[in-house]
Order: sequence, then C-alpha cells, then structure tokens
Amino acid sequence: MSTSTKKAGKVYLVGAGPGDLGLVTLRAKECIEQADVIVHDHLANPEMLGWARDEAEIIYAGKRAGEHALSQEKINALLVEKAREGKQIVRLKGGDPFVFGRGAEEAKAIVDAGIGFEIVPGITSAIAGPAYAGIPVTHRAENSHVTFFTGHEGAEKTESAIDYAALAKLGGTQVMLMGVERIESIAREMLKHGVRENLPVALVRWATTGRQETLTGTLQNIGQRVVDLGFEAPAVAVFGEVVALRESLNWYEKRPLSGKRIVVTRMRGQASALSDRLRALGADVIELPTIRIEPPSNLLEFAELVQDAHAYDWIVFTSPNGVTAFFDLFFKLYDDAREIGGAKIAAIGPATAQRVKDFHLHVELQPDEFVAEAVVPVRRQRSG
Amino acid sequence: MSTSTKKAGKVYLVGAGPGDLGLVTLRAKECIEQADVIVHDHLANPEMLGWARDEAEIIYAGKRAGEHALSQEKINALLVEKAREGKQIVRLKGGDPFVFGRGAEEAKAIVDAGIGFEIVPGITSAIAGPAYAGIPVTHRAENSHVTFFTGHEGAEKTESAIDYAALAKLGGTQVMLMGVERIESIAREMLKHGVRENLPVALVRWATTGRQETLTGTLQNIGQRVVDLGFEAPAVAVFGEVVALRESLNWYEKRPLSGKRIVVTRMRGQASALSDRLRALGADVIELPTIRIEPPSNLLEFAELVQDAHAYDWIVFTSPNGVTAFFDLFFKLYDDAREIGGAKIAAIGPATAQRVKDFHLHVELQPDEFVAEAVVPVRRQRSG
Repeated sequence: MSTSTKKAGKVYLVGAGPGDLGLVTLRAKECIEQADVIVHDHLANPEMLGWARDEAEIIYAGKRAGEHALSQEKINALLVEKAREGKQIVRLKGGDPFVFGRGAEEAKAIVDAGIGFEIVPGITSAIAGPAYAGIPVTHRAENSHVTFFTGHEGAEKTESAIDYAALAKLGGTQVMLMGVERIESIAREMLKHGVRENLPVALVRWATTGRQETLTGTLQNIGQRVVDLGFEAPAVAVFGEVVALRESLNWYEKRPLSGKRIVVTRMRGQASALSDRLRALGADVIELPTIRIEPPSNLLEFAELVQDAHAYDWIVFTSPNGVTAFFDLFFKLYDDAREIGGAKIAAIGPATAQRVKDFHLHVELQPDEFVAEAVVPVRRQRSG
Repeated sequence: MSTSTKKAGKVYLVGAGPGDLGLVTLRAKECIEQADVIVHDHLANPEMLGWARDEAEIIYAGKRAGEHALSQEKINALLVEKAREGKQIVRLKGGDPFVFGRGAEEAKAIVDAGIGFEIVPGITSAIAGPAYAGIPVTHRAENSHVTFFTGHEGAEKTESAIDYAALAKLGGTQVMLMGVERIESIAREMLKHGVRENLPVALVRWATTGRQETLTGTLQNIGQRVVDLGFEAPAVAVFGEVVALRESLNWYEKRPLSGKRIVVTRMRGQASALSDRLRALGADVIELPTIRIEPPSNLLEFAELVQDAHAYDWIVFTSPNGVTAFFDLFFKLYDDAREIGGAKIAAIGPATAQRVKDFHLHVELQPDEFVAEAVVPVRRQRSG
C-alpha cells in the first residue's frame, strides 16, 4: 500500500457514558486516544478529553440549557468536511449516541456523504443513573419491561409524541431523560390516566458523578418537591415500584466522601492514583490538567472550574506547576484572593506548598510523605 | 490501620457488556483485574476472564439454554459466603446487571447479609445489539420512546406480565431481550392489537460479536422467517420504524472480514495486536490463552473451542506453546487429524510453524516477518 495514498476519513460516533469516568468503554477510550479530531457535546465529565493526543483538534459543539454552540446542520457539515480531509473523527456524545442523542441523524448525514462510520455504544444515564441511586430499572418481582422516554420533545413532534394513556396502562418502570422542568405536568398526565397517586418516583441529578443527588417522592407530590427544593437539570426521572428498592440498595451516595468536591491539579499524563482513591471514597474529584490547556473549549472548561473554586471543599495541588497555572488564571478572573472562599488547600511536597504560600494562601494540609498517596490514609482496596 | 484487621468483603455486581470486548467499561476491567473471586454467568465473550489475577478463583454460575450450573439461591449464598471470608468478589453478568439480569435479587441478598456492594453498569445488548445492526433505538423523526421487555417470563408472573394491547398502543421502538422462540406468538399479539402488518422487525443474533447475524422481516412474516432460516438464540429483537434505518446505517456486518472466524493462540498476558487488527477488520477472533487453563469452567470453554476447530476459517498460532496446548487437547477429543476440517493454519515464526508440522499439518501461511503484525498487511488505523 503506497504511503502517498490519501487516508480515508472515518467518523466514530462514540458514547461518552453518563459521567463516571469508569463507565467509559475500552473502545471509547481507544477512539479518543487515536482521534485526529474530537467533536464533543457538553460532557458530564470533560476529563476524558485529556486522553486525546496532543495534536488532536478538539471542537466543542455542545449545548447546555438551550444554548447551542453549533446547530445540528453545522455539526453534520463539520463531520463530513473533516472526514473528507482524511481525518479520523470522534463524535463524542453524552450517554449512548442512539438513545435520544440525535446520533441517528448524524450517522445518516455521514452515510449520505459516502463516508465510513462506526458506532461505539455508551452507558446511558437512563440505566446507570437509577443504578447509582440504588434503583434497578427491572426487577423480576416487579416488572418485565421498562420504557425510556424524553421529557424534551421538539415542537415538530406530533405523531411520535408519547401517549400517556398507553404509558399508564403499560405500567412497568418508566424512565424519563431530560425535561425535569416538565415533571409536574407529566405526573399530572399519568395521574389523569389512572396511575396510583403514591407510585414512587425518583429524580437523580448529575447521576454517576461526584455531585449526584437523588430526590424521591410520589406521583402526587414530586412536582411540588422539585419546585420546593429547587431540584434542577440535568436529571433522570424514574417512575415505578422499583424506586422503593432504593431504600435498601442505595450505595453510591453513602460512601465516606460522597458530596465532597475536591480539585486535584495534575501534570498531564501523570498517573492519578490520588484522584482514584478519593473517588473510590465517593469524592467529586475534578482533575485540572495544568500543562495542556489550549483550544477555547478546554480553556473554557478550565476557566469554569477555576471560576467556581469557592464552591469546592478542598483544592489539592500536586505540583508547583499546578499551583502556578491555577492562580495565573484565578487572578485573571478575580482581583482578590478571598474570592477563593472557604476551600481548604492541600499541597503535596514542600515545593508545591511553598508555591501556594507565595500566593499568600494557607496550606491546610501537607502530608509528611511527599507522595500523593499520603493525603488520604485509607486502606488500599487490594493489599498485596 | 492494623494489618491484622480482617478485610471487609465486598461484592461488585459488574455488567460484562454485550460481547464485544471493546464495550466493557474501564471500571469493569479494573474490577476483574483486582478480584479475589469472580462468579460469572455464561458470557458472550469469556476472554475478559483472562484479565483476572493468576490467583483469582473463577466460578461458573451461568446458565445456557435452561441448564443452570448454580441455582439463584446458591449463587446468592456463594456471594455472601465469599464476602464473609473478606474477599473482593466480582459478580460478572452479561449486559447490564439491572436490565433483566436478576442483579436486583442478588444485590438484595448481599445487602440483607450486611455486606457492602457496588454496581458497575454495563452496555446492554438491548441498545448495542440494534446499534451494531445499524438500528438506532431512538430517532428524532420516528419516536420519542423505546420499551425494553423480556420474552422469557417466569411462570410466577401474573400482574407484571406485559400488556400487549398497551404496548401496541404506545408504539415507539420495542426491543425484546431473550425469547426468540416466542417471536411468532408475540408478533401475533401485536397484530391482534392493531399494529400494522408491515411494521419492520429485526433480530440480531450474537450481537456485537464476530458472529453477529441479522434477520429482518415484518410483523407479519418474522415468525415464519425465524423458523425457515433456523434463526436461534441468543438474539435481541427490535420492532419499529427505526428498523428501516438499517438499510443505510448497517456498518458492522459490512467490514472486510465480517463473518470469518479465526482462532489466535496466545501466551497469557501477551499483547494482542494481531487479534485487535483482525477484529477491527470484522473477524470473529477467538483468543486461546494457552498458559492458564485451570478450573473446569475455563477448561470447558477451551475444550468447546478446540472441539469446534472445524468450524473456523483460520487458526492462527503465535507460539510453539500455543500449538502444543491446542493439539494436546484436540487429540484427546479426536483420534484423527482430519477432524480439524477445512480450517487453514497460519503460524507466526519458524518455531511455531515447525511445531505445527510436527503434528503433520500444513501451514498455509507463514509471514516473512516473525511478528504478529505481518499476518494481516493492512494499513494501521493510525499511522504514527
């Protein structure tokens, strides 16, 4: 095969999973590692972009709360254009590309342009979200079927809109993706069609991430509870008897550091033993790769994290470089060190601690041993 | 923390995914690599057991076609017993543990015994099976909901049995897991409740593995087609307009080596560059780890593969050890070398080829370069 032959471009429609980095598939990771171009939506966990090659082009095409960086037509055109340049493109979508992800539309556009593609399914939050809240979507004793539907329906939907009378009659477990703001009206529809008032309902917000929260109620009161508690998107809702199993099966939200947010700054490529251990204990760990921060999309994410520094319980610096990169940006955004709020600071190693002190901030925790593992003196999961 | 403290046992309910090794999650792989004990069902891809530590105990608890190695009660008791010994146990289940996998029952038994657990969701064949056949379970233009149901219902099911009238009225995409032998009666139920005769239906057999096959038809004729073509379990069935998208979106079954079965023998732990490349081209690659073959379950799987040697197109030996292990077992099962059928033999390296010749078999292909990569002279996906 001649090396001068132009490579054929190809598009990989890849599911990024629900948020937990551990729920990414081996194939998705491999695709990200090999891509020339990554076109990604707003991801519950942008850390996986750190797996990309240094020279990979990373394009943010996402949408958050109605704000679209790129229209669907422009995304389709972009994929086709990059593939025609002979590039290997990863189109990275939250959850699974074919579960309410508009992946079918993108695949169609790619095929129509005569370009090759592959699908890499991902774990959908419709299944993993409930599972992380201790709710199995099926249970032999309760149901032999589960229906997934979306609370967001396009205005163009007429025929395909969901028939709540049929849904109510079908029973089983029902999982709603998106549309938490419509929960009240959807619950009303179900009640109208004869579903019992005290059917258990759960909403899982930021499912499978360190900031997961679950709200439970009944068909009768869930709408009011969402309003009262200001429970916001992104959330997945589960309607059905299986919700009651959470009482005994809840596990994820019970881990020792559940609900704690911790920032760990890292040299890119460094093994994240510390982050892994913190996560295993339930912490919401945000890793800041402080070496590679280049295209606007990454910069934006980094900036958001730095901007939100006051929202964290702990910020753990593991290198002097990490401290510098963090504060360089922090002081571009804020002109007062107190804007860091109540976040406590840990530093690994005396040089790292010194760099923090240079910024006139208190180092709350500096382990005796100068390795990341010493910060959290927990038993290793595997001894030996 | 004292080292004499007894470790707390824990059970990880882990989804093994649908079959494609690439669709296993990072977390599932990590759990398998760290487990003291692995209790697994019949897996579409037993290769992942090769990730286990040498000293891990591997227990087959699976069922295939009604034959149960262990009853559900015995599995529950086993998990509890091993956890009480302080072991880290991976309970490995095909697909997702909470999607028709009886994972909820096992989790309940574990919790009731006061033992800690975690859920590691897996890719379900209900979504990935259709996706690998070019069928998105949702498509914006077609449907805003998808229902998963099981064709296998326990005799004890009464209230929870599916209401086909409601299912027919609900429409959208419907995916049936298991129960391919009941497809005729299920299609009849749907027709009876007013679903149109020519609604497209697809069955995907051995979905996401190298031996994937897809059968399409309509609600009217699918039952007969299954009988005529002898289409057997394991298969996932999709009912809905989205099936028509396969015409343009079919990708997996169109790769150059799709439908070819190739055996690659390997030293355990060796990198599988050859297998990866063959798989990327669509081949159904069976890796035989020829060093570690110990408990009955593995031996059984190895034996089944050797026994079926005649069903393969190619057998690729990559080491003299592989040749010896293969034929030692082969000649325990067969007393005539011709039982190997039409399978062609490739050998990597002169020593490997010589070992094959010692068994008086023809080496069809022996690449000039003595590395696995030379067997399939294809362009690398990424030219470095």
